[in-house]
Amino acid sequence: MAHPTVAFQGERGSFSEEAAYKLLGPRIRVQPCETFAATFESVVRGRTKFCLVPIENTLAGSVHENYDHLVNYEFPIVGETSVRIVHNLIVLKGVSFSGIRRVFSHPVALNQCLDFFARNPQIERVPFYDTAGSVKMIAEEKLRDAAAIASAVAAEIYGARILRKSIEDDRRNFTRFFLLRTPVYARKHPVRAAAGAPWKTSLVFSMRNIPGALFKALAVFALRDLNLTKIESRPLRGKPWEYLFYVDFLGRADEPNVRNALNHLGEIADFLRVLGSYPKGA
Amino acid sequence: MAHPTVAFQGERGSFSEEAAYKLLGPRIRVQPCETFAATFESVVRGRTKFCLVPIENTLAGSVHENYDHLVNYEFPIVGETSVRIVHNLIVLKGVSFSGIRRVFSHPVALNQCLDFFARNPQIERVPFYDTAGSVKMIAEEKLRDAAAIASAVAAEIYGARILRKSIEDDRRNFTRFFLLRTPVYARKHPVRAAAGAPWKTSLVFSMRNIPGALFKALAVFALRDLNLTKIESRPLRGKPWEYLFYVDFLGRADEPNVRNALNHLGEIADFLRVLGSYPKGA
Repeated sequence: MAHPTVAFQGERGSFSEEAAYKLLGPRIRVQPCETFAATFESVVRGRTKFCLVPIENTLAGSVHENYDHLVNYEFPIVGETSVRIVHNLIVLKGVSFSGIRRVFSHPVALNQCLDFFARNPQIERVPFYDTAGSVKMIAEEKLRDAAAIASAVAAEIYGARILRKSIEDDRRNFTRFFLLRTPVYARKHPVRAAAGAPWKTSLVFSMRNIPGALFKALAVFALRDLNLTKIESRPLRGKPWEYLFYVDFLGRADEPNVRNALNHLGEIADFLRVLGSYPKGA
Repeated sequence: MAHPTVAFQGERGSFSEEAAYKLLGPRIRVQPCETFAATFESVVRGRTKFCLVPIENTLAGSVHENYDHLVNYEFPIVGETSVRIVHNLIVLKGVSFSGIRRVFSHPVALNQCLDFFARNPQIERVPFYDTAGSVKMIAEEKLRDAAAIASAVAAEIYGARILRKSIEDDRRNFTRFFLLRTPVYARKHPVRAAAGAPWKTSLVFSMRNIPGALFKALAVFALRDLNLTKIESRPLRGKPWEYLFYVDFLGRADEPNVRNALNHLGEIADFLRVLGSYPKGA
């Protein structure tokens, strides 16, 4: 599979693009999309083979919209990776720090660089729709009194320069991404990993609202020594105060003890769907 | 305690104000705040005795910012209630439906009335910062070609008129609110409820990242037949891929079996805090 195309949300140079290179190598083609829904639609309509979406960030938490899309679009997860979010101060070539009057970026990125703004009160923060998009805009408008906060990839793509590296307040800032494709392609080209490398499986289920329901569901894994790495709840539409549970655990859906666990969960869950098995990300 | 003051986020006439009346009666005084953080700060600074915040919505899910505030501000939860989110089309007196060219409201409210806009393509949707605030603005600006989408309370407060009741797509749209106060007041004036009425307790904990950790934590409740009503996970700052768990269950912290459950959870949790016991909302 030479040069597959990957859809992601945001402009060229986003952290999603970095995640795509990490998972599929540098020779892919990329398809930037305006919204998360558009990245899934891009696969539905056959414009791209893959889509890649952020699922959680270690500071901000889960990206709930994408959890909802995982259920609505029935694409298997075929890969995961995480990217350290490094916020760089980026300017046009020849612009010096003393010339910067305002800094453009996505509001979340601006909020993750509060120490920098506290040390530089002369610089105005300007919220923009996208991190990489703010570099693109500065380059297009040739703004010489402004900077952007974005990834190193964005600086490279738009021919800009990193003036200050890694100005984020907290370096323990990682985003985890899922790579998805159509069920047909996922069956035709199953993911391979090094022998003995760990796998993860993601699934979603709902339980009747009975005492101890979630405990019984988790027993399915605990009784087989399957290690949960994440659990997330989302409201069940049309059933106020009932929830869908998303679970990630170490193991592969075709291993015997995982198959047994899934059968066991099927006995007691109202709804159950395996979202995919994939090599555990670094 | 006559006429206590309650802080909430949003303009007068918000759904939070409706929740405050439901919990504390019609004779309270209210303190609208710009942000959720400001409602907590209002209690910290002694300007209000109570603050009231939304914690989850049956369509949109949890309000994660407020989960984070529950840990950072150590105020006990002393009450809960839920309010059905009814979106009304509101205009100035004398304005007829055929005169409406645009509708102002919070983007979430606009998105929950898509059927109405599909049936009326001649009407433009205009995102505004607040539902009740859009009624206030229409009244102040005396706009006669515009409507707002907001609560019935907002129409009453700003002297406007409900032209169409309940235009939301999905009536199973409820928001749950927590009422909080300072620990000192909560101790001095403990909440009372009718004898035999059900109580709920909310708590937050973290576990070491060991196999079966969450299963062991939930066993604490299941082994004592304590019924969980909600579980929510949030990232633990500074420990990537570890989580805080928020749990609500039926029972009161000073009942013997609940005390035993809390002691048991204390044995195995890295961190545990009871956020409050309060009468179960209607």
